[in-house]
Amino acid sequence: MKRTQRRRQLVAFQGERGAFSEEAARKLLGAGIEVLPCPRFEDVFHALDQKKVQAAVIPIENTLHGSVHENYDHLLHFDLPIVGETSVRIVHNLIAPPGVPFGKIRRIFSHPVALNQCLDFFARNPQFEKVPFYDTAGSVKMLMDEGVKDAAAIASAVAAEIYGGRILRRSIEDDRQNFTRFFALRRPEDVRRAPLQAGRGARWKTTVVFSTRNVPGALFRSLSAFALRDLNLTKIESRPLRGKPWEYLFYLDFIGQVDEPVCRNALGHLRELADLLRVLGCYPRGD
Amino acid sequence: MKRTQRRRQLVAFQGERGAFSEEAARKLLGAGIEVLPCPRFEDVFHALDQKKVQAAVIPIENTLHGSVHENYDHLLHFDLPIVGETSVRIVHNLIAPPGVPFGKIRRIFSHPVALNQCLDFFARNPQFEKVPFYDTAGSVKMLMDEGVKDAAAIASAVAAEIYGGRILRRSIEDDRQNFTRFFALRRPEDVRRAPLQAGRGARWKTTVVFSTRNVPGALFRSLSAFALRDLNLTKIESRPLRGKPWEYLFYLDFIGQVDEPVCRNALGHLRELADLLRVLGCYPRGD
Repeated sequence: MKRTQRRRQLVAFQGERGAFSEEAARKLLGAGIEVLPCPRFEDVFHALDQKKVQAAVIPIENTLHGSVHENYDHLLHFDLPIVGETSVRIVHNLIAPPGVPFGKIRRIFSHPVALNQCLDFFARNPQFEKVPFYDTAGSVKMLMDEGVKDAAAIASAVAAEIYGGRILRRSIEDDRQNFTRFFALRRPEDVRRAPLQAGRGARWKTTVVFSTRNVPGALFRSLSAFALRDLNLTKIESRPLRGKPWEYLFYLDFIGQVDEPVCRNALGHLRELADLLRVLGCYPRGD
Repeated sequence: MKRTQRRRQLVAFQGERGAFSEEAARKLLGAGIEVLPCPRFEDVFHALDQKKVQAAVIPIENTLHGSVHENYDHLLHFDLPIVGETSVRIVHNLIAPPGVPFGKIRRIFSHPVALNQCLDFFARNPQFEKVPFYDTAGSVKMLMDEGVKDAAAIASAVAAEIYGGRILRRSIEDDRQNFTRFFALRRPEDVRRAPLQAGRGARWKTTVVFSTRNVPGALFRSLSAFALRDLNLTKIESRPLRGKPWEYLFYLDFIGQVDEPVCRNALGHLRELADLLRVLGCYPRGD
């Protein structure tokens, strides 16, 4: 009898093939996944919600640019639990089509944010013209498709691999401390059917969103639910609620697994104090 | 005797003339200022520190994209106190050179972030090609300089005014709830010489940065300095300290004036608990 071929997992992310989100998706879900690139974050959530994919990967915060509030909004609006986290260092590489040597390059294409993160490289190489493009990975694709002979792109190593570009200079970004944290998401019924497993000794992290009425000390009392139980917070962030002056949403991550009694009690305590409380996910802590 | 002509105030900001930072600068410091556009945030801080300008205006957080960590870093590194805050709604307008009617437009230039914030407009008008450009305001300038006849740009109303473009469609952004909060900065000696005045009944806000060792409950104890004195927090955000796992910086805003006894006591109490504490500024609360 022929062995049933297992279908490869399809994973949605925002951006072009070769985006940093694709790198995060492979780190989180394995090198063998297939991917569905989407134009907007909202499309990524819809793709998972409507069962077009089995998982999704989204950026949630960056060390230079802060939290991606839009994705916290989608996490609140959709019911798609976080099942994993990872961090990816944003490494920009100079990539040219094969046969285009460094000395022949006149123009360099990339997303303006990436071009602006390589200003020291451009200062050392004033012969290059910076050309803004839609997408980092998309600029590699365009150079390969058009057969351009005097230009290069700035993008991830994964983009070079996917489109067959050659990396001429590695890691040309100004700031080596530029990391983006990503979440993997699944549908709730899939998590119920196959609960997450963590390796031996792995630690769990839980992400919640809650709101409090703005009376002085409301946040302080909310945090007592964790502090009085010696639970360790790894992230807290307030965000004003639109159209409701003086009311806030809080994003909070803590070390712990929601089914442990101490975490269950802390969340029960927080529920007494908060107007709204949503557990967005409980997942093995990433690197 | 001739009246001494008062020199107009020169204010630095990041971006091209007509950027949203320029709009914020006029809201914060008056319509009569002169401006110094700078390529990077760091250049803005240097310009003020090196006395090339009398004030600087920087974005600090956006309702969709979160806090601008880079500017918090600069606020910590430089000694340039915050003297004011304001919020600007990010309104994108379709701007064309005079004589270019809507029906003749084929291409629309702007920064990719702005183009991506107007996707509903592009969906309703599929005849337009999106062309990424370095800067929103800069794309208006380019169209005017080059005399392009079949293109428009997406940028602020201020950019249209500065470069002489015509606004063909106002407020074409997808999300009306896109606000950026800006800080005005001055040099410390100038603030000492001419202390800030607030209007009658105005409320003051104070911004601090502090760090704690990561023992469970450290943040909770730090917040007790405010909660036990009924001081109201309007922002809190944690940020992992690079290279120091489990240590965090916290950004915190509270309502109060640093010279009031209750605020002095709260900061004294916080100083006992925190490894590092910096008051980044105390300023009249913005709208």
